[in-house]
Amino acid sequence: VQFISGSPELSRTNLAGLLRLLHLNGPMRRAQLTRLTGLNRSTVGALVAELETLGVVEEGGFPAAAAVGRGRPSMIVRPRSEKVQVLAAEVMVGQASIALIGLSGTVIHRAHGRAADNTVHTMADLVADLVAELIARTSGRVYGLGISVPGVIRIADGNVRFAPNLGWHDQPFGELVSARLPGLVVRIRNDGDLGALAEYLRGAARGYDDVVFVAGETGVGSGVIVGGEPLLGAGGYAGELGHMSVREQGGRRCRCGAVGCWETEIGGECIAEALGLPADASHDEVVAVLRSKDGQPSQQLAQVAHYLGVGLASIVNLLNPGLIVLGGLLREIYPAVADAVRVSMLASALAAPAEQVTLSLPELGGDAVLLGAAEVIWQELLADPAATLAP
Amino acid sequence: VQFISGSPELSRTNLAGLLRLLHLNGPMRRAQLTRLTGLNRSTVGALVAELETLGVVEEGGFPAAAAVGRGRPSMIVRPRSEKVQVLAAEVMVGQASIALIGLSGTVIHRAHGRAADNTVHTMADLVADLVAELIARTSGRVYGLGISVPGVIRIADGNVRFAPNLGWHDQPFGELVSARLPGLVVRIRNDGDLGALAEYLRGAARGYDDVVFVAGETGVGSGVIVGGEPLLGAGGYAGELGHMSVREQGGRRCRCGAVGCWETEIGGECIAEALGLPADASHDEVVAVLRSKDGQPSQQLAQVAHYLGVGLASIVNLLNPGLIVLGGLLREIYPAVADAVRVSMLASALAAPAEQVTLSLPELGGDAVLLGAAEVIWQELLADPAATLAP
Repeated sequence: VQFISGSPELSRTNLAGLLRLLHLNGPMRRAQLTRLTGLNRSTVGALVAELETLGVVEEGGFPAAAAVGRGRPSMIVRPRSEKVQVLAAEVMVGQASIALIGLSGTVIHRAHGRAADNTVHTMADLVADLVAELIARTSGRVYGLGISVPGVIRIADGNVRFAPNLGWHDQPFGELVSARLPGLVVRIRNDGDLGALAEYLRGAARGYDDVVFVAGETGVGSGVIVGGEPLLGAGGYAGELGHMSVREQGGRRCRCGAVGCWETEIGGECIAEALGLPADASHDEVVAVLRSKDGQPSQQLAQVAHYLGVGLASIVNLLNPGLIVLGGLLREIYPAVADAVRVSMLASALAAPAEQVTLSLPELGGDAVLLGAAEVIWQELLADPAATLAP
Repeated sequence: VQFISGSPELSRTNLAGLLRLLHLNGPMRRAQLTRLTGLNRSTVGALVAELETLGVVEEGGFPAAAAVGRGRPSMIVRPRSEKVQVLAAEVMVGQASIALIGLSGTVIHRAHGRAADNTVHTMADLVADLVAELIARTSGRVYGLGISVPGVIRIADGNVRFAPNLGWHDQPFGELVSARLPGLVVRIRNDGDLGALAEYLRGAARGYDDVVFVAGETGVGSGVIVGGEPLLGAGGYAGELGHMSVREQGGRRCRCGAVGCWETEIGGECIAEALGLPADASHDEVVAVLRSKDGQPSQQLAQVAHYLGVGLASIVNLLNPGLIVLGGLLREIYPAVADAVRVSMLASALAAPAEQVTLSLPELGGDAVLLGAAEVIWQELLADPAATLAP
C-alpha cells in the first residue's frame, strides 16, 4: 500500500489504500489510520466519509482499551462485511466447498457439495449450483468468484493445464464456469498459490516479504511470495515446488511423469504409507493414526522427514525465504519429526540463508485456500473502490 | 521505467527515466524518446536540455538511415560516456579485473592484476591498486565501484559470508575495500547475480521478465530475475542454484558441505574431469579439448548433460522462466550436448512451464559480470541524476 499526498488526482489511490488497510487489519482508530498512511487528519476524515457513503465502512464506538487512555479517543472505523461480498470456491477430488466472504475476510455463509465424478463438466455444474445457493442467501452485492484448483493453471483464461488428482489435462474450466455464471467475474488459481497468499496477507506469514508455503495433501501444493508479490513466472506457472527433483536416481515415478519429484517423497500418499495406511487414506485417518502413536517415528516417517529437509534446503538456497509455512499433512507430521527435518535441512542448506529462515505452521487452517481465493477477487475490487462500488 | 505526466514535482522521475532509456539503449532520436516515454515533445525537449546541461548527453547529427526517410528527421540524442563513469571489478581466484565504464556501458579503460595469495587483505589491496591505476587515467568523474565476488554476499555491508573458491568465511571485504578507497561508494555483489543482471539489461535476456542465468566455471554461479527485478530473498542470498540438491543419494560432497549439489554434477571441475582433464584445468584448456573432439560426447559428458537437464527442470517448475542463459563452461559444452540436455529436462519438467522456456547462450561473453557490477552503481547514480550529477 502506497500513500501519496499533495496530489488531488491521486486521491483514488489513497481511497483504495485506506480501504485495503481496513480490509486486511480490521477495525482501526482514525489516529491509527493517520499514522499508518502518513496522510493528514482532514484527508483521512474525507476518505473515511467517502468510504461510508460507499457503504463499506462505518464509524463510531470506542474500544474498551481506548476509553481508559489519555485524551479524547478517536473514532473507530470498521469495515462492513454485509454490503459487499465475494465468493470463493475450492475444488477437490470428488467435492467442492464454497464460501461467501465479506470485507475483512469474514466468512458469512458456507456450502459444500459432492460430485458424482471428477469430470470438468460435473465440477463446473457443482460450483455453479453452490454459487446459486449462496447468492440466494445474501442481500449483499456479490462481486466475483475466485476458485482454487489443485493443478497447473493458465491464469489468463483459467485453463487447467494439468491437475493429476482430478485427471484433467488442458481443460477450459474457467470458460465452463463462466458460461454457467454470466455476469460474474471468475478467476481460477492454483491451490498452493492461494494458500501462500492467504497466509501472507492474514496468517502466519504476515510481516514477511519472502514466504514459501508447502502443503502436503494428496500431492504437494505450494506457493511462493517474493518481495511481497506472488511468484508467477512467465506464464503464472511458477511455484511448483512439489515437482522439484530431489531423488532422480532411485526415487518413485510421479504422476507428472518424472522420477523422484519432491512430492513422491513427502506428499500425502507417501505420509499415509509411512504410517501403514493405504496411499489414499483421508486426512482425518492420517491424523487419527498420528495421534495414536507415541515415541520414535517409524523409519519410513524418518525418511519423509529427511526428504522434507533436503527439499527445504534447496528452497532456502534458491529463494532465501524469511518464513516457510508447512501446511496440510506436513502440519500434522512436522511436530513429531521437527528435529530430523532441521538436521537434514541444515546438512544441505548454505549457512547464510539458513540462518534467516523460520519454519512455521499455518494459522488459517482449512480456510487458507478459500480466503486466498477471495483475496484474488478483493484485489481487483479494491484497486479502485470508488469506481467498482458506486451504487 | 515509469513516466508520469502532468505533475511538475515528478519531473525528476522523468529525467531519471529518460537518461536510463538512453543509458540502456544508446543513441535515440527525439521522436523515439517521445514515443517510448509517452511524454509530449516539449517536455522531452526540456528534459534533454537539462541532461545536456548536466553534461551526460549531446545532441546533433543524423544517422544515415534517417537521412533518407520522410520529413525532417529529428535530432539524435547520444549519451556521453566521457564525463561520468563508474568502476567495476571482478575478483577471481588469484586475480582481479577492473574496468572504467561510461554511460551506455562503454568500457573506457581496463586493468588486470595477479594476487600473491587469495587472502581478503591481499585482494582488497589489489582492487585498490587497480582502482588507483584507472582513476589516474581518466578526467571524468568516477562515481563508485561495483565488485563481483564468487560467493554468498551480505548486500547490506558487503560481508562475504562464504566464498569457497577463495577460502573466505565471513570476511568483511566491503569494509576492507571501502577503508582503502575513502569517498568512493563501494558495493559488493555475487558474480552470478551480476551476470544475470547484465544479460537482462544488455544481453541475451533483454525483453524477458523472468530470467535465470547459470554459469558453470569452478562451481556454478547463478542469478535470477523475477518479474523484471533481481531475486534477492530475505537477505540478498537468493539464487544459489548451484546448491540445489539434485543427487543427495550417491552424489559427491560439495565444498558447501552438502552431498549432491547441482554444482558437483555440472560445475567446471566436473566438466574438466568429464573431458579427461584435471579438476582445476583452466577455461581455455577445457575449450581447447572440446574443440579437438568430434562425434559423440563421452559417457561422462553425457552424464553432465543429464544432470544439467534435471536441474533445469526443477528451475522450470519452480520459477517458470521465459529464458535460461547458460554461461561460463556451460556455454562451451551446451552446443555439443543440447539434445541430451533437452531430453533430460523435458523428462522432469511440467509441460506448461516447459513450453514457455528458451535455453540460450549469453551475449555479453566475458564482460557480463563487469557490466553487471557497473550497473549496480549506475542504478544508484541514475535514480536522481539532477542531484547526483550537479556540478
